Amino acid sequence: MEKADPTLAVPLVSLAGDQTRVVDTDVHHQIPDKTELYPFLCQNDRQRLEEHGLPKNSNIYHGSGGFRGTRADCFDLGEDVDPRTRLELFQEKLLGGCGIDRAILQGEYTPAVTALADLDYSAALCRALNDWSLAHWIDRDSRFRLALTVPMQDPAMAAKEIHRLGDHPAVVAVYAVCGSPKLYGQRYYDPVYAACVDHGLAFALHFSNEGSGMNPAPTAGGHPSYYAETYLIRPQFYQAHLSSFIFEGTFEKFPKLKVAFLESGFGWVPSFRWRADAAWKALRTQTPWVKRLPSEYIADHIRFSTQPFEDPDPPSALAHLLGEMDAGRTLMFASDFPHWDFDPPEAIARRLPAALRKGVLADTAFETYPKLR
Amino acid sequence: MEKADPTLAVPLVSLAGDQTRVVDTDVHHQIPDKTELYPFLCQNDRQRLEEHGLPKNSNIYHGSGGFRGTRADCFDLGEDVDPRTRLELFQEKLLGGCGIDRAILQGEYTPAVTALADLDYSAALCRALNDWSLAHWIDRDSRFRLALTVPMQDPAMAAKEIHRLGDHPAVVAVYAVCGSPKLYGQRYYDPVYAACVDHGLAFALHFSNEGSGMNPAPTAGGHPSYYAETYLIRPQFYQAHLSSFIFEGTFEKFPKLKVAFLESGFGWVPSFRWRADAAWKALRTQTPWVKRLPSEYIADHIRFSTQPFEDPDPPSALAHLLGEMDAGRTLMFASDFPHWDFDPPEAIARRLPAALRKGVLADTAFETYPKLR
Repeated sequence: MEKADPTLAVPLVSLAGDQTRVVDTDVHHQIPDKTELYPFLCQNDRQRLEEHGLPKNSNIYHGSGGFRGTRADCFDLGEDVDPRTRLELFQEKLLGGCGIDRAILQGEYTPAVTALADLDYSAALCRALNDWSLAHWIDRDSRFRLALTVPMQDPAMAAKEIHRLGDHPAVVAVYAVCGSPKLYGQRYYDPVYAACVDHGLAFALHFSNEGSGMNPAPTAGGHPSYYAETYLIRPQFYQAHLSSFIFEGTFEKFPKLKVAFLESGFGWVPSFRWRADAAWKALRTQTPWVKRLPSEYIADHIRFSTQPFEDPDPPSALAHLLGEMDAGRTLMFASDFPHWDFDPPEAIARRLPAALRKGVLADTAFETYPKLR
Repeated sequence: MEKADPTLAVPLVSLAGDQTRVVDTDVHHQIPDKTELYPFLCQNDRQRLEEHGLPKNSNIYHGSGGFRGTRADCFDLGEDVDPRTRLELFQEKLLGGCGIDRAILQGEYTPAVTALADLDYSAALCRALNDWSLAHWIDRDSRFRLALTVPMQDPAMAAKEIHRLGDHPAVVAVYAVCGSPKLYGQRYYDPVYAACVDHGLAFALHFSNEGSGMNPAPTAGGHPSYYAETYLIRPQFYQAHLSSFIFEGTFEKFPKLKVAFLESGFGWVPSFRWRADAAWKALRTQTPWVKRLPSEYIADHIRFSTQPFEDPDPPSALAHLLGEMDAGRTLMFASDFPHWDFDPPEAIARRLPAALRKGVLADTAFETYPKLR
């Protein structure tokens, strides 16, 4: 588990022959059938699962990209075989096909399981899904790493799960989604961050669950009508949590905590930083525990992922965007495999200045997730 | 009312002697006392107002900038005299003091009145406040213009109020706030936009009411804890409504409608446009009534205001920000007088390239509000 197979650490052909390794910070696997979870549940929860099935992610829009949200070319076994359940497909198209030697799994099952109102059943399913992921994915390919699924609705139970599995060598992060009853900087969640720091885990935040289950509506004007709207406004889900982390003083309390923003986009980062610093300068007497400029907390604690990559107009704007967000230090590669808007590392490397490639494709991820090496 | 006093059309000293006139698109007046509203209400509503008083804007944060949210230097009559109620102060410090010859009033009373659950009482207060503003402000200085307060919670009643006063020569817009039960692109609000277009009025959107009264929480994670957070995340309230306008096809239905985003900031505009165009390209089969690139709708229909002005790091980023948002065509001056984060036109003019000054200080506002001349 500790060492990657050296034959797999192949540099990308396009990356000019250096020994760059590629870390993929956002990959989504799924459990094919509820019966695979039975060995990991007590009799009572197993009966409940048998009767009601696994919770499904909200899809009030009945729309997404690709085919059912996934790369259409991944349905080679027919439209009823979910590509996210096929480890061999990940090995072929992602790990081997793209020369990736670390891929961090964020379970496709997580949003639905962590939106349940029943805290104990949610926690039981989280435990079982983590155990299932370790047995069925992590133990079968040394290139996978796991972001734990935890019941964020119940921070004490979430911390307990982090303490149970946080020292497993392949567990590198705790996974949470943006839709939540409370913003993540609020003290309610402190036990989760204390546990992350104890075990050297990053906190990985990904959109999903906004306005579903027990969570509030996604916007100040309620629910958008269309999937394209929710796709377009995703950055705001992360911005609300980031504002909360900053002004609650989360990083003063947990100076070692690193937070990965997965699939947040990054075109919004420079203007958010400017505005955050201005807000702090004007209003900081109201939150005196916030000691530093917000842009400094962001630089030290928040890491962004490449997917979906920005497409500026004019294209020359990309260079100053990367400069203004300090991308050499804050940007990490993510493919989002096997989702429809997947980006291969070669495509990203081609869009980056040569000086940034190694940092974005590997080094910043190694710095963000201490247990990744 | 139709002509400005020519002695007041003084060009700003800093503006190199040309005949630039200055339009201020966002100014906030207030009613000093409920008794001034009595003449404009029926007996029943007057009794209700006498007994319960005017609704107050939500302030769950007990925090703001300046003194009580207002420029501290405007309390020269003592801390109990609200500067927003003093027309002479506006004449002295804003109109005369800053050389402004058109100031569009957005009532400080509007958010609270339009968050009431009782639709008929809300509509009665809106009518009375509009009549009061015309009598006590508009009729007393020809430089003022009014954005109508309407009960957006009840689009049919809102349209009725627009038809009642929309042809008044000093009425140039309809004022709405970002906190709302539904996003503003939704068909529910079509009667309001039809009425705006009928009378040549812009639709002026301003933050406020998010998460208060009958409105949903401001973020996908609920209510932020601190005022600084709500200040920092304001752009997302506008982005949610803008996504809705685009993907609902509002501007296909109302090709003459102009929407002013007041106090939205504008640093977020370029990356939002890039992302919106990418979302449309990838997903447009799901919303086939959206015929054009989102950036084209934004360029033709949405206007941004200068206050609060962005403070980029590095400062050189301002030039490409203004270029990428097509500021010569989309940016309008606003002072936000007498709020604490007020910007005088000279300060803004100094930060703009000479080629943009006339457009930002006056021309774009004249194009956005057809009845302003």
